[in-house]
Amino acid sequence: MAAAMMNGKSASPEEEHPRKAVGWAARDSSGVLSPLTFSRRANGDDDITLKILYCGICHSDLHTIKNEWGMTKYPVIPGHEIVGVVTEVGKNVTKVKTGDKVGVGCMVGCCHSCESCKQGLENYCPKVIFTYSSIYHDGTITYGGYSDMLVVNEHFVVRFPENMPLDKGAPLLCAGITVYSPMKTFGLNEPGKHLGVVGLGGLGHVAVKFGKAFGMKVTVISSSPNKEKEAIERLGADSFLLSSNPEKMQAAMGTMDGIINTVSAVHQLMPLIFLLKAHGKMILVGAPEKPLELPVFSLIMAGRILAGSCIGGMKDTQEMIDFAGKHNITADIELIKMDYVNEAMERLVKSDVRYRFVIDVANSSLTAA
Amino acid sequence: MAAAMMNGKSASPEEEHPRKAVGWAARDSSGVLSPLTFSRRANGDDDITLKILYCGICHSDLHTIKNEWGMTKYPVIPGHEIVGVVTEVGKNVTKVKTGDKVGVGCMVGCCHSCESCKQGLENYCPKVIFTYSSIYHDGTITYGGYSDMLVVNEHFVVRFPENMPLDKGAPLLCAGITVYSPMKTFGLNEPGKHLGVVGLGGLGHVAVKFGKAFGMKVTVISSSPNKEKEAIERLGADSFLLSSNPEKMQAAMGTMDGIINTVSAVHQLMPLIFLLKAHGKMILVGAPEKPLELPVFSLIMAGRILAGSCIGGMKDTQEMIDFAGKHNITADIELIKMDYVNEAMERLVKSDVRYRFVIDVANSSLTAA
Repeated sequence: MAAAMMNGKSASPEEEHPRKAVGWAARDSSGVLSPLTFSRRANGDDDITLKILYCGICHSDLHTIKNEWGMTKYPVIPGHEIVGVVTEVGKNVTKVKTGDKVGVGCMVGCCHSCESCKQGLENYCPKVIFTYSSIYHDGTITYGGYSDMLVVNEHFVVRFPENMPLDKGAPLLCAGITVYSPMKTFGLNEPGKHLGVVGLGGLGHVAVKFGKAFGMKVTVISSSPNKEKEAIERLGADSFLLSSNPEKMQAAMGTMDGIINTVSAVHQLMPLIFLLKAHGKMILVGAPEKPLELPVFSLIMAGRILAGSCIGGMKDTQEMIDFAGKHNITADIELIKMDYVNEAMERLVKSDVRYRFVIDVANSSLTAA
Repeated sequence: MAAAMMNGKSASPEEEHPRKAVGWAARDSSGVLSPLTFSRRANGDDDITLKILYCGICHSDLHTIKNEWGMTKYPVIPGHEIVGVVTEVGKNVTKVKTGDKVGVGCMVGCCHSCESCKQGLENYCPKVIFTYSSIYHDGTITYGGYSDMLVVNEHFVVRFPENMPLDKGAPLLCAGITVYSPMKTFGLNEPGKHLGVVGLGGLGHVAVKFGKAFGMKVTVISSSPNKEKEAIERLGADSFLLSSNPEKMQAAMGTMDGIINTVSAVHQLMPLIFLLKAHGKMILVGAPEKPLELPVFSLIMAGRILAGSCIGGMKDTQEMIDFAGKHNITADIELIKMDYVNEAMERLVKSDVRYRFVIDVANSSLTAA
């Protein structure tokens, strides 16, 4: 617990820790981001310090800066698709050394002792500490990757493959593991199986790439007819289904082993469930604000499974990025400077990005708006 | 295809097959049952003929006689929890011999060649033929167990354990396998795990017994306070949760490895999903007529799984009944004569039975209403 907290006083973000840092923060639910001088903790024995090079912009960042989930602690510095270079390591650190390229995703802490942690599923630890807007072990608020540097326990760091471009690799740390983890857990990584991907955005386009790398047949399902060309020609999907075309949806009934559903808007589950074979699995990784309608018989009649999945554990994250490196999988990105971030957020609301914004942090001026 | 069907004429149930039979049938959606003289096919090389001794009354029988699923073919003779004694076997039959006690459940045919059939999951075969109100391979309608005898392919017969009472064992052929199969499939059969059973009726009370036999901690969740005593004292459940008590539901959050949800009325999923641990599984075996509300975040935040399940395959059904025999598991029943069946249906609508009606077919007069 930081001394200031122990005294019942809340230290300012700038004063609570010894190391000076600068980032872009939202101060209120307007969500407007601007420079914030803050501080990071001293590098502990199990910590590494990294100079941040790139940080992807995730839809969660947008939800959080606008407090759409009602849990934001302002000021908030978002960013959990962080790539950087190691500048300092604590004496117990064995995973990386100074100069290594590393990634940090959505988590920076957990209890290490619960059932989930013991299974390497820190993401489901009831005490998981997220990379931003979360309370760290010492009682201070965590700040994310829209900033110049980060101090993090080595457990939450992954080594970046040598061949992976750092900017295009950054989104894998959230978008990548979010789709890779359930694909692995539910056996949707086997050659010859038929994978459906619902929604072609930050998550969906990476799911298509993993599916193809696993040797699967991949069908993209989308409500936007203009995604067909992108799905097939740009991303290499095998086929495309327009969800508003009942004849084609009907013809594809019972053909898919699994579906990764990335849609976070309210939508109809039934026509998607019917695409699944008997015992097929649909994994929901997008969380609509309102409940969806679930026609139970559509699950019962063919022993189908519906599951939710949230990012993935650290072991799987390392495995995912190594697999991506081996198969040259990266995200399709639009690289921006920090001073474009508010405009990027406005475009993200309209899904006007193909498919992920990444901030070129090291080449941005962080102190001037 | 029966000759009469080939000619474009539909033979009467009494004339289409060579063997005379009598049962109780509903003629229309009033659902009133009364005697029907009909016929069964000759015993083929792979068939067995059985004299029916007992038949359980399943909620599906009630739905079907009233055409509540819109698929009933009248006249319908319901009944798919059938126990009988073998009176004749075809020359290829190896599983049983004359005089053996056997059971027939919900299925009497399948394609034997699809992905599901190959996995021993005939219940999910797209061409599965149900025991009644279904079209058999020869084009005739199937008739169920509220009747004096049955001719059935030996594949769809299970051998009854020597020690199992035939009347109390009958409901296991549908209610038993319906809960046993998903418990096995989803690993909810391991000692020490915590199982929730939602709803204490025909399915739920058997799920409690299987859970205890597997060595699990079993909690019954119900909306009826008067089920507490039954659950604990009569069935041996470890604890009871009144679903309308928010404090107790809250206190039990995140404690269950899995839940068998037998409720077929519209109900709230969220408080039940929250009872599950991370990666916990809720299996839905009751199909409400209207869609349920699914709050997706409740699945995502802890990687939880929701699945539907419909009866079980023949291999699992034999395994289930052998396990039940070994552990002295039977259903709690009220034994009735055939002429009480219409009154039994009225009581079933009100859930006024503890927990399953079984018809004493062999000791009933089937020809007089």
